[in-house]
Amino acid sequence: MGPGPINADPRVLRAMSAPLIGQYDPAMTAYMTETMELYREVFRTANQQTFLVDGTSRAGIEAALVSLIEPGDRVLVPVFGRFGHLLAEISERCGAEVHTVEVEWGQVFAPEQIEAAILDVRPKVLAIVQGDTATTMCQPLADLGEICARHDVLFYCDATASIAGNELATDDWGIDIVTAGLQKCLGGPSGSAPITISDRAAGVINGRKHIEAGIRTDDDPEVGRRIGSNYFDLAMIMDYWGEKRLNHHTEATSMLYGARECARLLAAEGIDAAVERHRLHGAAMLAGVQGLGMTVFGDVDHKMNNVVAVHIPDGIDGDAARASMLVDYGIEIGTSFGPLHGKVWRIGTMGFNARKDAVLLTLAALEQVLRAGGAPVTPGGGVGAAQEVYA
Amino acid sequence: MGPGPINADPRVLRAMSAPLIGQYDPAMTAYMTETMELYREVFRTANQQTFLVDGTSRAGIEAALVSLIEPGDRVLVPVFGRFGHLLAEISERCGAEVHTVEVEWGQVFAPEQIEAAILDVRPKVLAIVQGDTATTMCQPLADLGEICARHDVLFYCDATASIAGNELATDDWGIDIVTAGLQKCLGGPSGSAPITISDRAAGVINGRKHIEAGIRTDDDPEVGRRIGSNYFDLAMIMDYWGEKRLNHHTEATSMLYGARECARLLAAEGIDAAVERHRLHGAAMLAGVQGLGMTVFGDVDHKMNNVVAVHIPDGIDGDAARASMLVDYGIEIGTSFGPLHGKVWRIGTMGFNARKDAVLLTLAALEQVLRAGGAPVTPGGGVGAAQEVYA
Repeated sequence: MGPGPINADPRVLRAMSAPLIGQYDPAMTAYMTETMELYREVFRTANQQTFLVDGTSRAGIEAALVSLIEPGDRVLVPVFGRFGHLLAEISERCGAEVHTVEVEWGQVFAPEQIEAAILDVRPKVLAIVQGDTATTMCQPLADLGEICARHDVLFYCDATASIAGNELATDDWGIDIVTAGLQKCLGGPSGSAPITISDRAAGVINGRKHIEAGIRTDDDPEVGRRIGSNYFDLAMIMDYWGEKRLNHHTEATSMLYGARECARLLAAEGIDAAVERHRLHGAAMLAGVQGLGMTVFGDVDHKMNNVVAVHIPDGIDGDAARASMLVDYGIEIGTSFGPLHGKVWRIGTMGFNARKDAVLLTLAALEQVLRAGGAPVTPGGGVGAAQEVYA
Repeated sequence: MGPGPINADPRVLRAMSAPLIGQYDPAMTAYMTETMELYREVFRTANQQTFLVDGTSRAGIEAALVSLIEPGDRVLVPVFGRFGHLLAEISERCGAEVHTVEVEWGQVFAPEQIEAAILDVRPKVLAIVQGDTATTMCQPLADLGEICARHDVLFYCDATASIAGNELATDDWGIDIVTAGLQKCLGGPSGSAPITISDRAAGVINGRKHIEAGIRTDDDPEVGRRIGSNYFDLAMIMDYWGEKRLNHHTEATSMLYGARECARLLAAEGIDAAVERHRLHGAAMLAGVQGLGMTVFGDVDHKMNNVVAVHIPDGIDGDAARASMLVDYGIEIGTSFGPLHGKVWRIGTMGFNARKDAVLLTLAALEQVLRAGGAPVTPGGGVGAAQEVYA
């Protein structure tokens, strides 16, 4: 019940134990094509270029940024938690001139703040996370696409922590590239990074296509400035997933099976229903921790559905209490980074763990651990408040 | 029965369906530590820095090269097949001044040729593959470590295609970094890249350590030239796998389970026994294709144990015959790259497919397909010759 990675759906794990098939077996390429279509539903997009990057969510971020950014390009990163720093860090390593704007941890940006920064910086790329698990905040994005389009800025978003647990409308919101990971609300293991790329962004990336030595032919033009990474060269990866089936990496078959099953389960449930499920169980957990007498961190109106940060009560040893939750009750809750380290816990309700029994058990155990640690706690107050939400 | 990826061992797939645990759960960190120890056996090394990179084998290559190479560094790549071109390509993208020497496809280098090139180029890094599946050749490495040490060259080797199927002695041969993938003789799926790093190479990499923004503290010095990738920054990844457990990516738990099981099975069998198994079944397959009247490509004395390349007989449509093998008999054999495309097939006997029944069934089916295609073929000649090897 931490901020992710979380328990995978057992159906996803079962899918991952299926026998392997060759990477150009027609059954395999058909699975790849199906997976692209399923993730169009998850991302709410019609983008042809919707596929998987073989690595953790951070691999998806780096693939997007290194394929867009040429050394010297200006990139604007609004930072409202740790993962904004990560986008800035990766952009710097791609050679970008990075500009950041920041709000205090626990807050989000107003669209006007971001537009003002765009006018100031005139970036090629706006890079922002939707949900930052470090603070639990969910940045509103609906107005940013129009702002980016008006100022000719490419709009990149990391939705690893938020996707499928909070509304995300890639096309309606005009986002050029979105990347994610399986280990949060998608209900799978870390290790595969779904990505979707607009035609506009794909055009920018294909304007830098240099097919690698060893498989390049005389008919393959080399255009633009070569992308700084081979593994993350989205121009080549698009050709691997596309009709050319150009050899690049060897697709991680078991992870593909898992990623496909994550999306298949979500598509069967319906993306709106999945978001509503996260909203319901997140609301129950929020009411529950408040019912136990705990104080919630940050701007609750802009909290992600799938995670809540609570101040560690006075007198409680945060790490000892987390250890008791894990060892005595078999439930993991999260610690925090940076300025929140040692001050708040993060409790998730995401993916397979966005369930009533998981919420109620966590609250029941937390009550016992807080009591044992000497904190004032309302007997039954956590489970009772959650039950009221469910009622 | 292609050149990889191949059928994974069912025990590996079963291990991958185990429930997930949190990335800092003591059970998880214990698994990580066990996995490091198991891969020391596989790599035949005492290197502390032995772990997994979360991506396909190509991710391991890029992590090694981008962490070693600073822009302007000279890198020498002896090329004897497609994957030598890949090492050169990735090194170039890291900003290296790349020098290549080449032998004809189907041949390997003599140590003197490589030493002469080192004297000529004076590289910082020698980057070479052990086994190139494009040609099936296995480059002898035993003498190269001493040469590199004498000329103060860092010695990097990609052993993806060869490890566990052919002798590889990281420490005895003085190799500084070796990377691999699971999808060949290790018997697992693509998606995790085992790596081992000598103390000398780890020192070079840690001489460039810049902990990322967001988790860097004032106590963390920033030294040397920052590594050009965040995801592949081995200085940070070493801290993630080490005692500091510094947060970086979220370890791909299911792939870790799979990689651990691959190594556990090999350690139980014994690495020497695994190499001998690949030698035996590779010899049977070699005798078998010759017994069918086919001609083997390349220098057979330097062939990897685990794959053989055969000339497609005159009059046979290579792709149609491969399709018949797959559709009519459920057996995949490989096509080829570059100058060998359309001229040879590649047939593997590796990992879980290094088995007598797999060899005999493949030869029995191939005999039928060749006959149906109108090629002259010795009735029973393939299975018979293989049986003689087994006898």
